[in-house]
Parts: sequence; C-alpha cells; structure tokens
Amino acid sequence: MRTFILHTRQARTDANFNIEDLPGSGGRMDLVARCITASLWLSHAIRPDVKIYVVLNGPPNPPVTILFDGAAIQKVSTDERTTALWIKKALMEEFGKEWHTFRPGILIARKSLQEVVKELKNQPIYVLHEKGKLISDVEIKENPVWLCGDHIGIPDKDEKFVMRYAEEKVSLGKQVYLASSCISIINWICDERA
Amino acid sequence: MRTFILHTRQARTDANFNIEDLPGSGGRMDLVARCITASLWLSHAIRPDVKIYVVLNGPPNPPVTILFDGAAIQKVSTDERTTALWIKKALMEEFGKEWHTFRPGILIARKSLQEVVKELKNQPIYVLHEKGKLISDVEIKENPVWLCGDHIGIPDKDEKFVMRYAEEKVSLGKQVYLASSCISIINWICDERA
Repeated sequence: MRTFILHTRQARTDANFNIEDLPGSGGRMDLVARCITASLWLSHAIRPDVKIYVVLNGPPNPPVTILFDGAAIQKVSTDERTTALWIKKALMEEFGKEWHTFRPGILIARKSLQEVVKELKNQPIYVLHEKGKLISDVEIKENPVWLCGDHIGIPDKDEKFVMRYAEEKVSLGKQVYLASSCISIINWICDERA
Repeated sequence: MRTFILHTRQARTDANFNIEDLPGSGGRMDLVARCITASLWLSHAIRPDVKIYVVLNGPPNPPVTILFDGAAIQKVSTDERTTALWIKKALMEEFGKEWHTFRPGILIARKSLQEVVKELKNQPIYVLHEKGKLISDVEIKENPVWLCGDHIGIPDKDEKFVMRYAEEKVSLGKQVYLASSCISIINWICDERA
C-alpha cells in the first residue's frame, strides 16, 4: 500500500467551476487532476495498491477531501478534463464529516489535512520539502504516506501539526518539481526499492 | 541541453479536433500535452535547457513534428487544455518540410521520426524500451536525447532505423509507466546525476 496526500490551497470546494478553465475558476484543479493521474496510473493500468487523498482548501466551503482509491476505482481516464469532471460530480453530492462513497473508489468528506493525517497516523508519513533529507538517504518504511503541497505549499501551522506524526521531511534534490512530477518520481523510487 | 522526442501513433495532424475531447478526437492529444508539461516545467519555472519534439502520426496528413523549446518559449501554461490549444493553433499555420517558427519556442514542420532523429544524430540517443538496459546501469552522456513512445509504442521499422544512431535501449524497471511519468522520472535522474 502506498498513499499520497495532495494539499491544495485554492482548489474549489464546490462544483461551481468551469471545466474549460481548471487553472483559473477551478483554483488549479488542473494540478489536482494531473496529480491523481500521476499517482494512480501505469501505462494501460491502474495501480491497485495506491490511494491519493486530495485536500481542497479553496472557496466557498473548505476543507473538503476527496479520496481516489486505485483498488476500487472504475472508468477513470488519464486526461485532466475527465478527472476534473469526476471531482465536480463528487462535489455535487451531499456529504459531511464522514466518508461518503460517491462511486467505487471515489470518496468525499469534509475533512481537513490534519484530520486526514490523524486517520493515517499508523502509517509512516513523509513530508516532501525543499529542505528535507535527500531521498537517496531516506529509509522508506512499508506502506508509506507521502504528503505533497501544491504550487503554494503547506501552511506553517499544518506543517507543524503533521511533523508531530511524520517520520521526516524528504527532498527530491536541488530542483523544485511540479507536484505531479514529484508523485511520478516517488512512485518510481518506491517501485525500484520494492 | 536535454532533449525528448515523443513519438505518437494517433495524434491528429490538423487542427480539426475538439479541445473538449483531447483523448478521442485529438488522438490522445491529452497525453501529448501532459508530456510537454512534464518535460519543460519545474515548479514556477520553465527549464531553459530542455526541448521536446512531438511527432504526430494521426490523420489526416502525417507526419508532423512540433518542437517546444524551453529556451525560447513564452506564455505557456501547465494545463492540458492550454497546451493543446497551442498545438491546435500551430497546426493551423502554413508549413512544409523546413522548421516554421509559429511563436517563440514553438516550431512546426512536416518531419517524420526518422528525419528528427537524423537531425539529432550528433547527440547521444537513448530509446526508452521495456527490454532495455536498466537505467541505473546506463552511463548518460552529455546532451542526451530520450525517445519515448506513446501508449501504443514505436513501429518496428522506425525502431530499427533509430537503433542505427542510438546509444542503447533503456528501461526504467519492471513497471511500464505513462509517457509523461517516464519524462518526469528521466528529468529527475538527469538532474540527480548532473
């Protein structure tokens, strides 16, 4: 089992965004969709052992978290528009603090990053961070959780909270990569070490 | 300098595709757009030392190659729709066998994979291939060219042609990754070794 958490600062928390303008009206919903594809997909196959939690913190009603579970998901596609349409439809559902299953493998709840981290605290959590330990020097334990920020990054108070549960901060090196590239790279590194 | 070539089998070679249906009417133009983003973008910045040639072999008039050059490109975005719109506009231009500059950093020509490879033959060419040598065992020379196929792969006759010029076939391991993930992983490996 491999888990990703993508923390977003501006991604919309209702369905009132234009599917033809994911970066603007969606609050970088293009980035969210790309990360879901990067985490779950191999060529021609979904990874059944991968989950991604996407924490949406944009207007009008944050936080909302959507969980995509590779073990159960069906009929998804790799393109941003299709993935964003699933998010839009999930956001049209009625849901509260508990997980609501919208479709097989797509769940939604009014949960914050801190609540998601508490749910996952029995797995080893690694926080991607520019100033973290170089990944080549990090021992990756079984069933890792990888926390990635978006283009803005994780708020200080959330980062402090997460570090109470996390193993350590991990860096991918001198460059700062797109969140979707980070996820592709981590999937590869975990595959290599398995 | 780092160069990618993405060879596609079905991506449309005129502008007559629906920007709201990149996978279907565009012949997997979503995949093309994602690969361009994965090759050129860091977080908040374009890589000035990266180029990607996209060879389109779909209907109605293949082959067409579009070159995105990180050293010169302006006003691009990371989302699939915006990148596909640039491709659509480039395909509306008049162009022939020689490179036509559509915008700074976006060039287009009626060139095949074989013609692109001949243009790049003075750089070391590596062909991504499931049965290639494991990348951890490959010495990456300066100014590498990385040839990636799409979800269908490179035709046998083109692969044979390319191997006359190529250093070797290279594998990323046991899994078969999305082309965009391959590009993210290779960028990371090249960054690490630099």
